[in-house]
Amino acid sequence: MTSATSSALDELIAALPDSSVILDPDLTASYRQDWAADPTAGHPAAVVRATCTEDVQAVMRWATAHRVPVVPRGAGSGVSGGSSAVDGCIVVSTERMREITIDPVARVAVAQPGLMNVEVKKAAAAQGLWYPPDPSSFEICSIGGNAATNAGGLCCVKYGVTTDYVLGLRVVLADGTAVKLGGPLIKDVAGLSLTKLFVGSEGTLGIITEITLRLIPAQPPASTVVASFDSVHAASDAVLAITGNMRPAMLEFMDHASINAVEDFVRMGLDRNAHALLLAQSDAPGAAGALEIETIVSACERHGATEVFATDDQADGEAFTAARRAVFPAVLKLGSLLFEDVGVPMRELPRLVTGIADIADDLDVQICTVAHAGDGNTHPLIVFDPADPDMADRAQTAFGRVMDLAIALGGTITGEHGVGRLKRDWLPAQLGEDVMALNRKVKDALDPLGILNPGAVIAAAQ
Amino acid sequence: MTSATSSALDELIAALPDSSVILDPDLTASYRQDWAADPTAGHPAAVVRATCTEDVQAVMRWATAHRVPVVPRGAGSGVSGGSSAVDGCIVVSTERMREITIDPVARVAVAQPGLMNVEVKKAAAAQGLWYPPDPSSFEICSIGGNAATNAGGLCCVKYGVTTDYVLGLRVVLADGTAVKLGGPLIKDVAGLSLTKLFVGSEGTLGIITEITLRLIPAQPPASTVVASFDSVHAASDAVLAITGNMRPAMLEFMDHASINAVEDFVRMGLDRNAHALLLAQSDAPGAAGALEIETIVSACERHGATEVFATDDQADGEAFTAARRAVFPAVLKLGSLLFEDVGVPMRELPRLVTGIADIADDLDVQICTVAHAGDGNTHPLIVFDPADPDMADRAQTAFGRVMDLAIALGGTITGEHGVGRLKRDWLPAQLGEDVMALNRKVKDALDPLGILNPGAVIAAAQ
Repeated sequence: MTSATSSALDELIAALPDSSVILDPDLTASYRQDWAADPTAGHPAAVVRATCTEDVQAVMRWATAHRVPVVPRGAGSGVSGGSSAVDGCIVVSTERMREITIDPVARVAVAQPGLMNVEVKKAAAAQGLWYPPDPSSFEICSIGGNAATNAGGLCCVKYGVTTDYVLGLRVVLADGTAVKLGGPLIKDVAGLSLTKLFVGSEGTLGIITEITLRLIPAQPPASTVVASFDSVHAASDAVLAITGNMRPAMLEFMDHASINAVEDFVRMGLDRNAHALLLAQSDAPGAAGALEIETIVSACERHGATEVFATDDQADGEAFTAARRAVFPAVLKLGSLLFEDVGVPMRELPRLVTGIADIADDLDVQICTVAHAGDGNTHPLIVFDPADPDMADRAQTAFGRVMDLAIALGGTITGEHGVGRLKRDWLPAQLGEDVMALNRKVKDALDPLGILNPGAVIAAAQ
Repeated sequence: MTSATSSALDELIAALPDSSVILDPDLTASYRQDWAADPTAGHPAAVVRATCTEDVQAVMRWATAHRVPVVPRGAGSGVSGGSSAVDGCIVVSTERMREITIDPVARVAVAQPGLMNVEVKKAAAAQGLWYPPDPSSFEICSIGGNAATNAGGLCCVKYGVTTDYVLGLRVVLADGTAVKLGGPLIKDVAGLSLTKLFVGSEGTLGIITEITLRLIPAQPPASTVVASFDSVHAASDAVLAITGNMRPAMLEFMDHASINAVEDFVRMGLDRNAHALLLAQSDAPGAAGALEIETIVSACERHGATEVFATDDQADGEAFTAARRAVFPAVLKLGSLLFEDVGVPMRELPRLVTGIADIADDLDVQICTVAHAGDGNTHPLIVFDPADPDMADRAQTAFGRVMDLAIALGGTITGEHGVGRLKRDWLPAQLGEDVMALNRKVKDALDPLGILNPGAVIAAAQ
């Protein structure tokens, strides 16, 4: 792979609509990094703000001809460095691809990738429908990025993750060919499951330019339980007692540090002395919902909750959920962050959560842990001061140790954020060499020149 | 690819446990065909009844060394010829791989592929849990075949298809390497979505030897609506009115011929004069369920149902569902069958159903249509007498025309049965050349010698 020469860039500019290509380094600089703020991110040769599939095709045809790397980018809210620029690359931003159409009878949306998740939700809601997947960042993350990472969220414990709602994709391949995979069909098994393969491929196999989404009827109103515990172990035991018996519509966990960071940030009246907090919802209707709430409350009480509060009030429930979502911005106030996304089989959740606390103690770093506990998926947020090199070093050590711990417990280094570049070096330890080889075979078959998001997920070919 | 020589077969026998390899042509003959009864099926050189992953590895190492084709086979209940033998191949049957373990706290099952779907359901039910996917053939189809075809069923309209429940797989690759993909993790996005890629790959990329399945709490009791219509068009309009407003737990369609075939077979008291029948269920609890049943009933009445019957009785509901499932064996009494599995976007359902009736009239063949109507997925069963070559010819013409019609309506040639060998020639018309090329790239990357189920889904390399 090479950097683009200036005459090659002239060709690219000529192949695209006016003002699509940004060359000014002051402007391209803001496309270098995503929320992961990867310090090793490179400098793009240009940023292309695509307006349509054909623009993306023009970029990939040109990139194949000139062997220039291309980094696809949605809203830049990724926290694994999946859209960190590489030196001399073209960043393809989908920010201007923002159309959506909804068929309320078929309950299907066709969305361009640059729309925010919240905009898809709103467009669906306007027709009385619901697009469930809800990353905490739903107001600032794009639906294209959601598909590229197979994003999860809070309601996924009951309603599933992005891939469960993607019926079809339009994808531009490495050589510029645009293919349509799947479509507005609820069931379709014709040919290999390529739609599912592209979901979660983090831009390494192609660039998603259109997404056909399944919608469902609006979610019924939910009731909410908030429970405080004086140990993380007790709280995670309560989680197992809940998920072993029912499917909550939400089951979130916050540790002591997260609770206090949120209280400093939004003042919800959470118990600052609690060592752990569970936030659970049931959206089952009527008596069934009351029974689910009773199951949640009694599981919490049986496992030593110090306080349990249940409410049917929608505004209260939404306020607690917003507080949970505020953990990321709240903890960001404490310093720079390394974002973990480790998950384990449900039975191992107590061991993961206590093991993370041990790592924090051992390395003397602050780790605030929140979790989609009902999925066994945790987000330990490692706080550090970048001006303190020793602390930054210890934070980096903790980052690796948390992933090592998850792998040792039979878990994953990433439940919903993606591998990106920051977790890539841990992937072989999780998957093993044979599965890594299988990943590489698929990657090489679809991107033989290695120009699609090189260095993300899999180490770039030399 | 070659046929196995007798000295090569001796090597295979030596590599496997005693009595694993069947060579007697009288015995291997029963492994030549699946339910599709493909008349072009070949003759296997041997059948291997594998007992474990290592047996399958031994077969694939040997097959790679000798370049012999391998056809994986579950219970042989496939209706697209996905496990038709090819001349000189080794059939790998998973019928003896029948273990299952269930973790009720994690709500996960680990099953070997030779178990029947019903056995997985029963093992889950013994722990108060539910494995939802329910092909009509659930008593005689294997869970391995379900994963290999991404099988659907009746409850999938609300609860999703096989891929939605597969968390992990153990797969033996073309060269005999065994890989573990995914695992008992609810969320895991580490690396490419290879688990999802293997689901539905019909044995063309590897042989599934273990499946980790997500289970959910037992289904609540369902209420049932049976509605008769005097036109298929009215019934399919009622379907759209239902699915546009709610998610039924089942929404099945039977046409006049299917109703009468079932009545001849099991005598349920269905209205023999009806031109179409809908069978719908709601399993929402309490008042919400009553509201859903009311929505279904009123949609049927509004669209001209001649009779609507609703019941909360579980035994009645199960009897109607069993009658619906009996359509396949009932119609088999009428003659030989060509099994269609076409699906369309929901709005096109009325056009598909009436178009199929037109094809039957035009070609003077009998087509009995049943459908998972809520998914837009239909099963027109084309009846013919193999002793009447002209009728067999017209049936074959109808088989193609029905798929052509589905493709023209933006639909699929297979919603849940798989492409196998019988629908392979129609796949390019549905997918187009670029997507076919993408399928071939993945196939060639993972099976460079083309020994895995050659001729299924994609034409075998010459």
